[in-house]
Amino acid sequence: MALPVSPLAPKTYVAPPAIAGVHFATAEAGIRYKGRTDVLLAVFDQGTTVAGVLTRSLCPSAAVDWCRQNLGGGVARALVVNSGNANAFTGMKGKASVQLTAEIAARAVGCDISEIFLASTGVIGEPLDATKFDGVLERLNGELAAEPWMEPAKAIMTTDTFPKLAEAKVEIDGTIVTIAGIAKGSGMIAPDMATMLSFVFTDAPVAADVLQALVAEHNATSFNAITVDSDTSTSDTLLAFATGKAAIAPLANLEDPRTKAFGDALKNVLFDLAMQVVRDGEGATKFVTVNVTGAVSDESAARIARSIADSPLVKTAIAGEDANWGRIVMAVGKAGQPADRDKLTISFGEHVLARNGERAPEYSEDAATAYMKSQELSITVDIGLGDGKATIYTCDLTHGYIDINGSYRS
Amino acid sequence: MALPVSPLAPKTYVAPPAIAGVHFATAEAGIRYKGRTDVLLAVFDQGTTVAGVLTRSLCPSAAVDWCRQNLGGGVARALVVNSGNANAFTGMKGKASVQLTAEIAARAVGCDISEIFLASTGVIGEPLDATKFDGVLERLNGELAAEPWMEPAKAIMTTDTFPKLAEAKVEIDGTIVTIAGIAKGSGMIAPDMATMLSFVFTDAPVAADVLQALVAEHNATSFNAITVDSDTSTSDTLLAFATGKAAIAPLANLEDPRTKAFGDALKNVLFDLAMQVVRDGEGATKFVTVNVTGAVSDESAARIARSIADSPLVKTAIAGEDANWGRIVMAVGKAGQPADRDKLTISFGEHVLARNGERAPEYSEDAATAYMKSQELSITVDIGLGDGKATIYTCDLTHGYIDINGSYRS
Repeated sequence: MALPVSPLAPKTYVAPPAIAGVHFATAEAGIRYKGRTDVLLAVFDQGTTVAGVLTRSLCPSAAVDWCRQNLGGGVARALVVNSGNANAFTGMKGKASVQLTAEIAARAVGCDISEIFLASTGVIGEPLDATKFDGVLERLNGELAAEPWMEPAKAIMTTDTFPKLAEAKVEIDGTIVTIAGIAKGSGMIAPDMATMLSFVFTDAPVAADVLQALVAEHNATSFNAITVDSDTSTSDTLLAFATGKAAIAPLANLEDPRTKAFGDALKNVLFDLAMQVVRDGEGATKFVTVNVTGAVSDESAARIARSIADSPLVKTAIAGEDANWGRIVMAVGKAGQPADRDKLTISFGEHVLARNGERAPEYSEDAATAYMKSQELSITVDIGLGDGKATIYTCDLTHGYIDINGSYRS
Repeated sequence: MALPVSPLAPKTYVAPPAIAGVHFATAEAGIRYKGRTDVLLAVFDQGTTVAGVLTRSLCPSAAVDWCRQNLGGGVARALVVNSGNANAFTGMKGKASVQLTAEIAARAVGCDISEIFLASTGVIGEPLDATKFDGVLERLNGELAAEPWMEPAKAIMTTDTFPKLAEAKVEIDGTIVTIAGIAKGSGMIAPDMATMLSFVFTDAPVAADVLQALVAEHNATSFNAITVDSDTSTSDTLLAFATGKAAIAPLANLEDPRTKAFGDALKNVLFDLAMQVVRDGEGATKFVTVNVTGAVSDESAARIARSIADSPLVKTAIAGEDANWGRIVMAVGKAGQPADRDKLTISFGEHVLARNGERAPEYSEDAATAYMKSQELSITVDIGLGDGKATIYTCDLTHGYIDINGSYRS
């Protein structure tokens, strides 16, 4: 399917630099799509640590099960990603398929299968024929390069309308440490638990447990703070690989201020990629930041913000450029969290629409309506009960979403 | 707005008979709509008991607050309903508005304000000018009739494309007892807690506490078992009025087999009305029954069924007539309830699509695709873990929903 590029797509793409110790190649394995790459092999030098978060869906894909098992080891030599088939809900066939894929990859790269990480994205329920990787991965292992990152970013796309890349650099002990990241995701995006497919690579030497702690921490405010359609994928996977090639002493504990500096850079990359996923939300025409303040706790604020961001009535009103704050009240009311109607304050951008449980005296329908025409919108709700706060990022719900999802599989 | 009538609308409407002790009239009060009735006054003879369930939204309308307060008394003399304005999130103005409306009604009817019940539906956040009822309610009190029920059913509509009526008769002690009911609702329908506006009237003599127990019990499997868009209204109100005019001994306790017979009839009316609300779901083209069996408990089954019924990806696939059972797996996985991927069985109608965590051997894409063209669909998921079961009724998600909700308020 050829979808028009999202109007919220970045105007230019970054071109992350080569990451020492990371090599990759892509190919057309013919899994589902024609005329485009659909398989990525990334190979890591020895000594690469790995960390990740995976979907908490109780119906995870076979590849997610595989990664969960191998993450305990903390070391990685290769990553194989295919698009077009999620290898989810494929039973024993799915397990056999990931086993065979890992064996082919381990043989090609020359490592143990416990060092292979796998991710699959696409249609759910179709068996994935892993014999299609036979020969392909071996060939890719002979074509490895360290740039351009655009190639792997494109190979993992499904209904994405643009490739998603991010980079960050941080100076540690006088040495520049680099992080490069890619992601895919457009629909089935409500990573309340983990994330869509995203892979981040760095040359920093980071102990696996430290990397795991950093990934979990910063995932919470990036991928876990976005929603396109409230539907959580069976395949959500975020993996971070650290090759250790940068000439600095290892980042081996969380208290090290250098770890903090690296973590901030990692956070920037994850946040950047997560925002790109929202901007490629299926059918999206508006990028919306939902801020909730004054809730009884941060968790309560997040639940209220998510209730607003997931509401089809709120999202269609935004699509229609209608400052329909009554639907915000509805979404606060249905969140099941402590709230007092008569203490709510609701703002769209700088415009206060409601205060103390009723329309604000200074409310101007014309000004609010003019604001709704912006491509980037901010909705803020102050609950007036405490100090809890949270931000969730989302998009509008348009005819484009119906078009894409009424015909995606067919 | 003139919306086309839902393709799922009933082919004919029932015409419930007069209920002894119930009299009503409707008028054009000009609250928001032009050229149609928008206010209903129903007057009850002395001795009428009342019961009801109300939204558990934490941002309820002023009318909901009013009803909650008066339901404790258990007696009713009048019901006033307006459409076009929900009087929700209108703060002190909203409270003053319901107080004034009740005073005008009590004066017109000649009763205490504690015997007046109120409901409002329409736009949220706009102050409701209760002075518009002045004179109108007095005039309506002089025009009361007992039929046709089509008039009150029409006066309470908002985005509804057809009026919703139901009736039931049950013989108790040789006497025919009658129940008549009306409802409105089309969007903002996920009455997990209570319901949209619905009013049910009977000539049976039913003690208020018995009526309350029956309404709560049967609401659970009717209005609380439907979802259009997962959005819960600020105004959900179900009220039942029993005039006691039927010549039978009072139904005064739940153990009485006659109470059971009456309860079954009440259940039929509530279920009928709830299904009509789904059939008028905004933009609906398919009526979908989601059955979940084999869950660890009924509550767990209900949560899984609701996760499926609320999923935009499931609903758009149904709109696209795509037997995309992978999205059912996704929705089971995100429900947060005990489930074992490798024990799931998924059927669409009689077609088993998946069994034991993978595509069923007998699966036929052609047969499943042909089934999806039906207007009435049934999706059954067996979790394979226990005896818990639940059924949720919903509709598909189409361009019509986006059309209606991108422009409803404007």
